[in-house]
Amino acid sequence: MPVETSTVLLHILYLIAIVAEAMTAALAAGRRDMDWMGVCIIACVTALGGGSLRDVLLGHYPLTWVAHPEYLAMTAGAALVTAFIAPLMRRLRRLFLWLDAVGLVAFTVIGCQVAQQMEMSTSVVLISGMITGCAGGVLRDVLCNDVPLLFRKELYASVSIVTGALYLGLLKLDWGLSAAVPVALVAGLTFRLLALRFNWQMPRFVYRDDWH
Amino acid sequence: MPVETSTVLLHILYLIAIVAEAMTAALAAGRRDMDWMGVCIIACVTALGGGSLRDVLLGHYPLTWVAHPEYLAMTAGAALVTAFIAPLMRRLRRLFLWLDAVGLVAFTVIGCQVAQQMEMSTSVVLISGMITGCAGGVLRDVLCNDVPLLFRKELYASVSIVTGALYLGLLKLDWGLSAAVPVALVAGLTFRLLALRFNWQMPRFVYRDDWH
Amino acid sequence: MPVETSTVLLHILYLIAIVAEAMTAALAAGRRDMDWMGVCIIACVTALGGGSLRDVLLGHYPLTWVAHPEYLAMTAGAALVTAFIAPLMRRLRRLFLWLDAVGLVAFTVIGCQVAQQMEMSTSVVLISGMITGCAGGVLRDVLCNDVPLLFRKELYASVSIVTGALYLGLLKLDWGLSAAVPVALVAGLTFRLLALRFNWQMPRFVYRDDWH
Repeated sequence: MPVETSTVLLHILYLIAIVAEAMTAALAAGRRDMDWMGVCIIACVTALGGGSLRDVLLGHYPLTWVAHPEYLAMTAGAALVTAFIAPLMRRLRRLFLWLDAVGLVAFTVIGCQVAQQMEMSTSVVLISGMITGCAGGVLRDVLCNDVPLLFRKELYASVSIVTGALYLGLLKLDWGLSAAVPVALVAGLTFRLLALRFNWQMPRFVYRDDWH
Repeated sequence: MPVETSTVLLHILYLIAIVAEAMTAALAAGRRDMDWMGVCIIACVTALGGGSLRDVLLGHYPLTWVAHPEYLAMTAGAALVTAFIAPLMRRLRRLFLWLDAVGLVAFTVIGCQVAQQMEMSTSVVLISGMITGCAGGVLRDVLCNDVPLLFRKELYASVSIVTGALYLGLLKLDWGLSAAVPVALVAGLTFRLLALRFNWQMPRFVYRDDWH
Repeated sequence: MPVETSTVLLHILYLIAIVAEAMTAALAAGRRDMDWMGVCIIACVTALGGGSLRDVLLGHYPLTWVAHPEYLAMTAGAALVTAFIAPLMRRLRRLFLWLDAVGLVAFTVIGCQVAQQMEMSTSVVLISGMITGCAGGVLRDVLCNDVPLLFRKELYASVSIVTGALYLGLLKLDWGLSAAVPVALVAGLTFRLLALRFNWQMPRFVYRDDWH
């Protein structure tokens, strides 16, 4: 039996995404004047932290980078390259917003699949996808001492939920993996890029008081 | 055999507490202008994060919200409701301080019981209770980019330790669960409310130097 | 068979190191005006958090302080003592920089050994050493709401990597544990102290833009 095409597609997108996440994380580290080691660590945590948090919360061992330490080398290497070509990165901003969106949807579907293989309930599968897609950026922001961007801007987590729900819904409708995966990826990607293009935002909850 | 009354009591208090914690966490998110998705995530992390951290540290799988994903819906729903009734929340401040105290002691006893079932040593049982009772608030503060309140104000962690120690002590004296649980809960709650009422504080350690 | 001398050495250094880490962490907590309970918690997290994170990421249960809760008492006790003798600490600054360096290299080698016993690949062994040596300080900085020092100053993580690599390299050359451990410790310690003495720094990546 040939390897499922959708698995190959996801894997290729995964590799592209961890490199892209590492590169944008390196820029975040550069904004905080971190040294090269700090840049590498922030890059690894951002690119691989979402999947790691998912695995720890679900008890899914070994973690991805433990089973595939070459991913650590890829992300750390990409981060160092970024430190050298940073001026170029400015002009590639649009490309990296795209790649970041690719990462979000690819991570999400992979995270859903991990929870599915563990026979988790539907809502846990969706949360697993969301953690995989979004938590790396939250860890980056916590380590850089920012209020996580995820909670304040952009439809990041929402795109992840929608992508995961579409993926699961299509499977429930008996679409095979080879159809459900690319459709969910393309739909999620489109949603994300439209959100970026038209600056869609969720309503915010603004609250002011003297409560402790 | 009927279900142990203390178990039912704890479970009811647990459900009340996660909803209350979610609602106060939603206000904290509102103070940071988070969008609705951020509000829901902060609420889930605050209400369920203490138990999750405990389970991850003790290797106690599956986590509570993985086994009971309905708790995620409850906390996220409570957070969204809070965003709509926020003006009302101001007038309920005293009620929520009470409910927060209920959560602290109920989480603590539940956390102790989890470690007891894993046959952990006494000090680990106490720490398990404290993590369950307190860590959700710490995670909330870290994600909101505050110095955790736990470490600076109020007898929060101390109340948790005292509650857990009383609960364990009563069991050692051969009180049954149905007596030890409510007594520890009421004593811990009383301690917490007195601490709030009379603004009891622990001594602080204030240190200034040029050490990096 | 006598217990391997290097194991005894590492264990003694470990005990010294967790006490020293707890004491410097207590000062960090004092700089944030934390109360005594906060001081104890920060001390425990700093001294034992690196090993805990390693164990959680590798799925290595039970965690050190769960198996040896006396370490919690040691670190919390050392932290409280520090709050009383803080003025004295100022004059011991140099000693504690030394002890911190001892902790870094001892934690690193212990972390490498844990991953070796789990038959992890070489790069995961190195990362395990680095997490054990460095993550406690990162957790401390996150809880104190600082940008982690690790990412910005000093050759901290680099010393850990070099120590771990030397330790593994010597084992590959068929040096026994009783030679590889002390040589790696002394070399790492020397590297760290030279880095402090001559203020060696890694190049930094400084990046400024308007990218979100």
